[in-house]
Amino acid sequence: MSEKLTPLEQNPEGIGYLPGLAMDFVIFGFDQYQLKILLLEYRNTNLFALPGGFVRENENMNDAARRVLSERTGLSDIYLDQFYTFGDLARYDQAPLRTIMQAKGLNPTDDHWLLRRFVSVGYYALIDFRKAAPTPDPLSDNCIWYTLENLPELMLDHKAIAQKALETLRADLDRKLGGYDSWAAPLLPKAFTMGELQKLYETILGQQLRRSSFQRKMLSLDILERLEKQYSGGAHKAPYLYQFIMDK
Amino acid sequence: MSEKLTPLEQNPEGIGYLPGLAMDFVIFGFDQYQLKILLLEYRNTNLFALPGGFVRENENMNDAARRVLSERTGLSDIYLDQFYTFGDLARYDQAPLRTIMQAKGLNPTDDHWLLRRFVSVGYYALIDFRKAAPTPDPLSDNCIWYTLENLPELMLDHKAIAQKALETLRADLDRKLGGYDSWAAPLLPKAFTMGELQKLYETILGQQLRRSSFQRKMLSLDILERLEKQYSGGAHKAPYLYQFIMDK
Repeated sequence: MSEKLTPLEQNPEGIGYLPGLAMDFVIFGFDQYQLKILLLEYRNTNLFALPGGFVRENENMNDAARRVLSERTGLSDIYLDQFYTFGDLARYDQAPLRTIMQAKGLNPTDDHWLLRRFVSVGYYALIDFRKAAPTPDPLSDNCIWYTLENLPELMLDHKAIAQKALETLRADLDRKLGGYDSWAAPLLPKAFTMGELQKLYETILGQQLRRSSFQRKMLSLDILERLEKQYSGGAHKAPYLYQFIMDK
Repeated sequence: MSEKLTPLEQNPEGIGYLPGLAMDFVIFGFDQYQLKILLLEYRNTNLFALPGGFVRENENMNDAARRVLSERTGLSDIYLDQFYTFGDLARYDQAPLRTIMQAKGLNPTDDHWLLRRFVSVGYYALIDFRKAAPTPDPLSDNCIWYTLENLPELMLDHKAIAQKALETLRADLDRKLGGYDSWAAPLLPKAFTMGELQKLYETILGQQLRRSSFQRKMLSLDILERLEKQYSGGAHKAPYLYQFIMDK
């Protein structure tokens, strides 16, 4: 895979990239009690955006998504899922990107590749935010975590994209909890208590859950294996530990 | 919106359309006991494909999807949902489309717009197949219903697209059952029995369900309103009728 492509801001024809196709990323960062998302900040413009990227001509789109995600977070092998593709005409607005490019000393013509109409494939990722090393892209100045309650104004339709990602993540929690590609596995120890799993759900859902009904629902999903207790020392008072069943 | 665009098979530059972006449609047709999907057949080629289409430069992508769906089925106002966007390099294979174009007497050059790499947005629709009037597109000869058990070989990755649509539809049944955009409403009478709803689920899931647990789950979703029985004639022996609650 070529690593020698000219950066797009200096590549007005977009040579080497699929035309008209962007990706936008809603990168959820989880800490024990908080859910945050990663935003790019553009100095001297008052503009904020979701991290984004483009697909190379010789690259699978989902591989391109992993590449961009790794560039922004320093992490590979993280939970990533497509959730929606955004193709409204109303997304087509040259003004914010022109402002951003001008603040970087660039002076793009109207038909610069970056200023054309883009359809954008939305991806969401879920990571332990203490492990990430957020890194801005060539056009942005900062890459920073924001809590969902304190998001700044975002450019274009990025707020709606973030909202739809959150709705999809919340709706998919049970269905995508089990198996090798569980969203939760990278956020939990290998063996975890029901309370740790519940805390994860509560943080993502933004609401408290009842302990008994949460436990009943989790066990009914048939994806958790309860481990035998280790009767050493005072450990018999410890809560049960669970792990995900991997042969489903 | 321009209706005067040159058809793409005679428009080697793809003027008027978004480059590199296609849509593929998995149109599920439901009859009381059968689930079918709509395929295009290309005479003298042994090729079959999902219906597809392209987005005009002055068109929202989701509107383009409704336009193509209406062209293929004769229906408007039907249940339609995006489910995944397919962007693997392996999709890029000029051979089948070249064969199809040549069978129509066309002789496209290697850089003909239709022969370039496309990323395709997958949509699924769900309709009452007795109401549809399947209509082929300019490059195909037939547009026909096939049962899921008897699909022919499909070109490119279309079989995987159909499979993923079916998985998504099945996984989303409960979550998208209620409200104004219920997938089930167009397939049921305004007031329906629990048995009719169960039959719909069973046909889509391809398996029998237990009556008592199905009823319990449906009622727990809190999206159904039970109607008062009409005590006229022998009607008191009739099963309860339900309708979807619309103010949720």
